[in-house]
Amino acid sequence: MTTTAPDFTGYAVETVPSYVLDAWWTPDSADGPGTAIRDASTGDPVAAVSADGLDLAAVVAHGRRVGQRELGRLTFHQRALKLKELAQYLNGHRDELYAVSARSGATVNDCKVDIDGGIGVLFTFGSKGRRDLPNAQVVIDGPAEALSRDGSFIGEHIYTRIPGVAVQINAFNFPVWGMLEKLAPAFLAGVPSIVKPATPTGYVAAAMVRLIVGSKILPPGSLQLISGSARNLLDELDYRDLVAFTGSAGTARMLKSHPNVVSAGVRFTSETDSLNAAILGPDAVPGTPEFAAFVDSVVTEMTSKTGQKCTSIRRVIVPEEWRTEVVHAIGSALRERVVVGDPRADGVTMGPLASLDQLAEVRSAVRSLQTAGGTLAFGSLSAPEVTGADGSVGPSGDGAFMSPVLLDWDNPRTPELHSVEAFGPVASVLGYPTTDGDVSEAVRLAALGGGSLVATVCTNDPAVAQQVITGIAAHHGRVLVLNREDARSSTGHGSPVPHLVHGGPGRAGGGEELGGIRSVHHHMQRTAVQGSPNMLTAITGVWHTGADRRFGAGDGHPFRKSLAELRIGDAFASGLRQVSLKDVSAFATSTGDTFYAHTNHEAAAANPFFPGIVAHGYLLLSWAAGLFVDPEPGPVLANYGLDNLRFITPVAAGDSFRVTLTAKQITPRETDAYGEVRWDAILHNQNDEVVATYDVLTLVAKE
Amino acid sequence: MTTTAPDFTGYAVETVPSYVLDAWWTPDSADGPGTAIRDASTGDPVAAVSADGLDLAAVVAHGRRVGQRELGRLTFHQRALKLKELAQYLNGHRDELYAVSARSGATVNDCKVDIDGGIGVLFTFGSKGRRDLPNAQVVIDGPAEALSRDGSFIGEHIYTRIPGVAVQINAFNFPVWGMLEKLAPAFLAGVPSIVKPATPTGYVAAAMVRLIVGSKILPPGSLQLISGSARNLLDELDYRDLVAFTGSAGTARMLKSHPNVVSAGVRFTSETDSLNAAILGPDAVPGTPEFAAFVDSVVTEMTSKTGQKCTSIRRVIVPEEWRTEVVHAIGSALRERVVVGDPRADGVTMGPLASLDQLAEVRSAVRSLQTAGGTLAFGSLSAPEVTGADGSVGPSGDGAFMSPVLLDWDNPRTPELHSVEAFGPVASVLGYPTTDGDVSEAVRLAALGGGSLVATVCTNDPAVAQQVITGIAAHHGRVLVLNREDARSSTGHGSPVPHLVHGGPGRAGGGEELGGIRSVHHHMQRTAVQGSPNMLTAITGVWHTGADRRFGAGDGHPFRKSLAELRIGDAFASGLRQVSLKDVSAFATSTGDTFYAHTNHEAAAANPFFPGIVAHGYLLLSWAAGLFVDPEPGPVLANYGLDNLRFITPVAAGDSFRVTLTAKQITPRETDAYGEVRWDAILHNQNDEVVATYDVLTLVAKE
Repeated sequence: MTTTAPDFTGYAVETVPSYVLDAWWTPDSADGPGTAIRDASTGDPVAAVSADGLDLAAVVAHGRRVGQRELGRLTFHQRALKLKELAQYLNGHRDELYAVSARSGATVNDCKVDIDGGIGVLFTFGSKGRRDLPNAQVVIDGPAEALSRDGSFIGEHIYTRIPGVAVQINAFNFPVWGMLEKLAPAFLAGVPSIVKPATPTGYVAAAMVRLIVGSKILPPGSLQLISGSARNLLDELDYRDLVAFTGSAGTARMLKSHPNVVSAGVRFTSETDSLNAAILGPDAVPGTPEFAAFVDSVVTEMTSKTGQKCTSIRRVIVPEEWRTEVVHAIGSALRERVVVGDPRADGVTMGPLASLDQLAEVRSAVRSLQTAGGTLAFGSLSAPEVTGADGSVGPSGDGAFMSPVLLDWDNPRTPELHSVEAFGPVASVLGYPTTDGDVSEAVRLAALGGGSLVATVCTNDPAVAQQVITGIAAHHGRVLVLNREDARSSTGHGSPVPHLVHGGPGRAGGGEELGGIRSVHHHMQRTAVQGSPNMLTAITGVWHTGADRRFGAGDGHPFRKSLAELRIGDAFASGLRQVSLKDVSAFATSTGDTFYAHTNHEAAAANPFFPGIVAHGYLLLSWAAGLFVDPEPGPVLANYGLDNLRFITPVAAGDSFRVTLTAKQITPRETDAYGEVRWDAILHNQNDEVVATYDVLTLVAKE
Repeated sequence: MTTTAPDFTGYAVETVPSYVLDAWWTPDSADGPGTAIRDASTGDPVAAVSADGLDLAAVVAHGRRVGQRELGRLTFHQRALKLKELAQYLNGHRDELYAVSARSGATVNDCKVDIDGGIGVLFTFGSKGRRDLPNAQVVIDGPAEALSRDGSFIGEHIYTRIPGVAVQINAFNFPVWGMLEKLAPAFLAGVPSIVKPATPTGYVAAAMVRLIVGSKILPPGSLQLISGSARNLLDELDYRDLVAFTGSAGTARMLKSHPNVVSAGVRFTSETDSLNAAILGPDAVPGTPEFAAFVDSVVTEMTSKTGQKCTSIRRVIVPEEWRTEVVHAIGSALRERVVVGDPRADGVTMGPLASLDQLAEVRSAVRSLQTAGGTLAFGSLSAPEVTGADGSVGPSGDGAFMSPVLLDWDNPRTPELHSVEAFGPVASVLGYPTTDGDVSEAVRLAALGGGSLVATVCTNDPAVAQQVITGIAAHHGRVLVLNREDARSSTGHGSPVPHLVHGGPGRAGGGEELGGIRSVHHHMQRTAVQGSPNMLTAITGVWHTGADRRFGAGDGHPFRKSLAELRIGDAFASGLRQVSLKDVSAFATSTGDTFYAHTNHEAAAANPFFPGIVAHGYLLLSWAAGLFVDPEPGPVLANYGLDNLRFITPVAAGDSFRVTLTAKQITPRETDAYGEVRWDAILHNQNDEVVATYDVLTLVAKE
């Protein structure tokens, strides 16, 4: 074991280390030189990669033991704050990562997508973890269900973190974003990560881990990195663990067939190939803002990351009558915008593919598409002219350069068009008939992809959007509607955002990542809990209707208690207050709410729900506050809202009502001197019938 | 093809038919006699089962084409009503099913669990489908996410039904409940079902389908039944389809390894073996109500359905010091309560196992457990005395009878104890140490089951419940806390309820069924949708902030429009109304809400959130109603509640505010003359700052 991290910004050929058991590790040189990695533009050696001799069982055991223990000491909010802190730290070290990343062929714009995008994921989860999760370790899923008539037996769902490790196998194209988009939700859930980057760009991921380790922000055992092949890692896993894979369908198949996935219950999710479609609506004819936005989007997706994105647009589905115009417009834009070359050279807008192997694969895929019927409408498979790092223009030499390639298809139902993925700057244009504005054939063509990550529909016609999106949604993980309203503000077809799910059915792998807290839930087990209200209160830390209340405990009124003193179940019960007809009239007059149910006896009695004139619901709420409020300055700072108000039994003139308030959920903030308290409020009338139920939301000082 | 359904209530040996392509089908007799099924008590032949020669590709195609089309014509509410109608119909035909089911060895109580339980699932989904889903075909998942600063680009998640079929492979032990608990959520989602019952009790499922078909309630193509082996069914499926399997781990493994699951994206969920635990808390000593409830629960779970339940208690984990008492108490109760025999005979409380094959399997498993160290503490493997259908008591003869078997274990960590499932009236008792009331070893023992469907924790100590449940939750799909408060009202350890999820990680299969609308979502694809507010409004049918509004369209005030006239986006905007200090004081006096922020300038200004005296939040709500209400009788019948109220900017004395109300979601009821309308309400102050946001909920007449 070595304890220092090498630096990949220089050109020395070193073995990329692993970070395991909270220390840096490199293989014994006796195990051989490892896989050689070369600069994508120059062919210069960058690093060697090998994990030969690494004790994978020890890595898994370390995560399960140390990582689970250390993360288990933190609440969701505390973990979220660490993610935010890490994001801020990494933001200050982006330049180092840009320099490393350029060697993989990434332009500055590509780096932004990968590196800034990855850091953005940390920021989002740092924020969402505090806004959308309790400051606790258990998440409640949905409302409690009454399971007995007398209320003594109820049921509810909780999420608790899985008791193992999250193994994250990433693709070569996003060494940083790919790592962080899987790490952030696992970390927030409290599950230790074992990161296995793709070999070709693993040195970029290792540089990132070097920064993370250097920051000393994450607790021990929460992050381990395996640089190099880890073929036997799944042998060590069982139902306590999760494998999140991004990469080829072939590797996914191998992993998904592993006995521990098939029989031992390893949770497995994957994100693989995808022949994503962009559909031009029949209304988006040449000359419209939608047509321009469509062409711009296709060109961006073809060339960003040199087309090496699982979300790139591969199938450009357009009205048959505009196919030629679309091909021309895309070709013109490519000619205008694309400068192929070493990303470190000025003016270069598209770097090489990640390696010569990738280049060979993409060329082979394009040839298959040509054989199947695709006509070369832009670009070629010949070595392109490239702009070099020294500013020169010349042949591509040892770099994995290729020109953008646009294929035009006469037969839109050719099977290869919907099944062969050329993972580079390659797209196909195909037409659909639009008799009477019908878009059903476009829907069918999109579905021929057999399940995709994302599709764009470009239209300004809401009816077209509705028809296409509801038709293709079940075949896609994400869909984007592009029109004049969002063409400038859109985050783009190819960019998953941390708030929304990423993944797709069928060919796209069948998995789901991101989507805010949804991805945290994927690292947790959902369990139905049944029991008495008291027991569910004890288990969840949230007061449940029917559980014990403590009236006037301690200092009396619960509004006089700070967060340090307040306990779940602390409660206040008011006396009855009568509502007279005069009160209702006065309220109608002062508020202006003269709805007939409050002012006209005959009309009110004719309403199916009222016995005659009834009190305003807002009168009940306002008076209830009058009944429960504690007027003097104290720890309760503000009522910031109200949830789930339902009026159950009307209060007629002459009726009385009372309010009971119970501390339901307490959420101290990590970074403020106060926190949120949710109070259960219930109003009863003089006959003990329920008048209304709601939650009152307050801010309460900690001390 | 035959077009009439045979009747299995008689004793004629017929081939159990399939119901496919909306017609009854039996195999050609030239294909052989099929598998013979015998009465579990008498050994008499009941039926033959074969699906030889059935065109499975046509069955799948029929579901995808006709079933999808017909279900696609209905909204969630319309489907839910059909489920309710079907439940009512079947409720009137229970006796016929009881008679058929008795032949499988089910007592009347067992039938209640299976048949009444299954009908109960239909009722629950019939109700939940209308309460928890919109009257539409698209479900929105979670709030919209702002993806651009200017609000022109937002994201949201929708669920749309999967575009294929749901293949439901059921176990022999619950031929009716097992079918209906899978059918109901699929139907509600709008996905056609292909039901494949287990061969031994497939005639009971066929009798049920006969009733369903006879009811003519379900639309064409929505339900097909395959009676007999359907080994090649998965060959016909792809990512559009879902397989929900209940049965042995071995079969699950085979299905999960199928190429179409591994590579073609067939959605697969399974519910398999489970060695469920019941844990006695250290406080639940003999003599407590918990001890009695615990023993009662174990005996019920051992003998109900003759222990042939995947949810039965197999591992009885008790404080070591009470192990002998527990064994004695269970033994006594078994002796007192269990009368083995033909379920058609008076006094019989436990029928035979489903078949002689099952009997042989259970005996073999018990022998393995004995060899591993389990001591026979009650019962034996010898043929028990049985009560016959004629009232006689005699040897078991051709019936699959066995006595309950209780095993006692000295070494609680014996691997077989946690891995060998005897699928009959068999349970094991093991002890855990409880030094100082510590229950951590009980948690570890429960987890040794490698993932289970359900566990019971019996304790009246909230701290014990909290520690055990949060410790075992991640290893379980459901946990039940049993104490004196819910011992009488509990639905029991062994009974999944439709409101809560059923399934569990690891050995339990890793799947999830039921859980109310959660199981409907399992039959749908979640898709992130990005676009402008107008486009998301068009796609979801729900108005989104930033989308167009129509002020005063049609008849003017939207409160004057019935559901027939009202459109999403119809809106009303009030003028400004000023709030004076006097107004605030008057409101404080009349309501009694004299909180210092409304009455004491100095104290209010010292509060971190207020500039000085501010208006009550409830004043703003009440006045807003006064600003937007339309006082005369009209289509708006009542304001029944309010959701998601948040106060953003305080309104100080002297400030003004206005309200804008927009029709956001319209949910007509299928069975009433009115429906729900959700209105977006937003208050602005005189500087156009947002004062408050909320949803107003109203009931509005259809005409």
